[in-house]
Amino acid sequence: MHILLCGSFDDSERDDWLQALQRAFPAAHWHLSVDPLNAAQIEVAVVANPLPGSLQGLPRLRLIQSLWAGVDRLMGDASLPAAVPIARMVDPAMNRAMTETALWAVLSLHRGFFRYAAQQRERLWRQWPQKRADEVQVTVLGLGQMGHGAARQLAAQGYRVAGWTARDRNADPVIEVFSGQETLHPLLSRSDIVINLLPLTPLTEGLLDEEFFNAMKPGAALANLARGAHVIDTDLLRALESGQLSHAVLDVMSQEPLPENHPYWGHSQVTLLPHIAAITDTRSAAGMVAENLTALRDGKPLANLVHKGLGY
Amino acid sequence: MHILLCGSFDDSERDDWLQALQRAFPAAHWHLSVDPLNAAQIEVAVVANPLPGSLQGLPRLRLIQSLWAGVDRLMGDASLPAAVPIARMVDPAMNRAMTETALWAVLSLHRGFFRYAAQQRERLWRQWPQKRADEVQVTVLGLGQMGHGAARQLAAQGYRVAGWTARDRNADPVIEVFSGQETLHPLLSRSDIVINLLPLTPLTEGLLDEEFFNAMKPGAALANLARGAHVIDTDLLRALESGQLSHAVLDVMSQEPLPENHPYWGHSQVTLLPHIAAITDTRSAAGMVAENLTALRDGKPLANLVHKGLGY
Repeated sequence: MHILLCGSFDDSERDDWLQALQRAFPAAHWHLSVDPLNAAQIEVAVVANPLPGSLQGLPRLRLIQSLWAGVDRLMGDASLPAAVPIARMVDPAMNRAMTETALWAVLSLHRGFFRYAAQQRERLWRQWPQKRADEVQVTVLGLGQMGHGAARQLAAQGYRVAGWTARDRNADPVIEVFSGQETLHPLLSRSDIVINLLPLTPLTEGLLDEEFFNAMKPGAALANLARGAHVIDTDLLRALESGQLSHAVLDVMSQEPLPENHPYWGHSQVTLLPHIAAITDTRSAAGMVAENLTALRDGKPLANLVHKGLGY
Repeated sequence: MHILLCGSFDDSERDDWLQALQRAFPAAHWHLSVDPLNAAQIEVAVVANPLPGSLQGLPRLRLIQSLWAGVDRLMGDASLPAAVPIARMVDPAMNRAMTETALWAVLSLHRGFFRYAAQQRERLWRQWPQKRADEVQVTVLGLGQMGHGAARQLAAQGYRVAGWTARDRNADPVIEVFSGQETLHPLLSRSDIVINLLPLTPLTEGLLDEEFFNAMKPGAALANLARGAHVIDTDLLRALESGQLSHAVLDVMSQEPLPENHPYWGHSQVTLLPHIAAITDTRSAAGMVAENLTALRDGKPLANLVHKGLGY
């Protein structure tokens, strides 16, 4: 099997991936670029945000396997061969890392650890009242593998947890589930902490705007662990300034790296992370790729296929 | 039953406790000070770090019930009536709060969130490699209700967890358990994060000293959630300066509030909390007190009695 590995990583990252993939699926010829000799041989493209147009002219291409969980940039490439299935990365180690980050953000907001960090900088010794976890309502937007995993872990920690999805979704034994636009505002109005783990699609882009923030409970907090384009930055800054929102944890930005003069950097109510909430783990992710490659070779069903109509 | 409520809280805290205690155990006369009329009536003293000597001259005293979990200051009062049993507070809500703080500290250290906070202040966008929880060895010092609860929760999150006690202790189904001085250094040498939840006794006071820090794995981190007197501050500062320790989370200090000119305040490798890792929850703690008062009245065994020889 001839496989193309391409994407927007630097040489050392690409070498790490190549090594891990070769180890996980040795029975393949791996190519790092397309040329006239290999173009007709390549059956699979293993990609990490490839440049638009780079998957054209591959007549035998049968699968596009993303190394990233978010495929919004990939789906924006109008030149993708329409008939070729696309698979997302679903990496248990990455899901686990996302749950850790969500749990850390909720614990930090619930227990006031960001506020205590600010107090340390002011050399201020002051205690604030302590709430029990079951007095804190957390809402997780998005119930894909990451959102669902985070929501269940937060429920296990004793938080009151609800999940929200843009589309209909079955009930869950552990968390309350709400679906559709009409349920969103009532849910926001009673949530102390909102965690965004939605996929980025035309339906969810810009969802976290002025109207959304105004619907939130006054003084509530937001953690955006999904995509920067979910948030209208000027609206978020206004909601923070007015006190409508008390704090925002942002792992993702509309422009990354965040420009040095962006108001988020020095904002006392913003905790910034450089898109590290969940990094794909080369080792386990390569194993997931190998499973799909094996399935393709053996004519078995492929896992984690993107629904092109929904965009995730 | 006549009960004395006294301690080092301000009027509003004392009123909160009095209300919660009266609600939880209405069949009692509550006194807020000792006078010639009530001294011979008082059977129970419910206390929160009372001034030394304040429990003398109570001939019918049958129980000293602490509202705080740590009784080291109480035990330092040489004038305490020797024959009267002392009960510690064991408050499930407080244990739960301590587990939350321990989990937050471990997540923050494991996932580099303190480092990312420092990077935000420098407007630096830089990602660091991500470890899995099962690649991180956490050691919990002290396996009382708080230490044990924290250790089990950390194990549930996937960390490699060991517990250490100064005295012999039975094996545990979930965590490795080590006891005694001779096991401490080998354990420290392989621990990435050490959480102190020991009781403060003559055996553990000053345990976290130069020798202790030198025995730790180079670059490891400490969270002290127990008592300030466990730590020799100058030794800790030296270990941080040399890089032997990468970071310390300190909830407790040898002097509280921490003096404004103390080097911990502005130290980039120190995260300070104003003794809030676990605040006794008035509501649930009053319920625990009521259970012991009921047991005393009914001649049933008392719970959570302090072993005066061990000091906790």
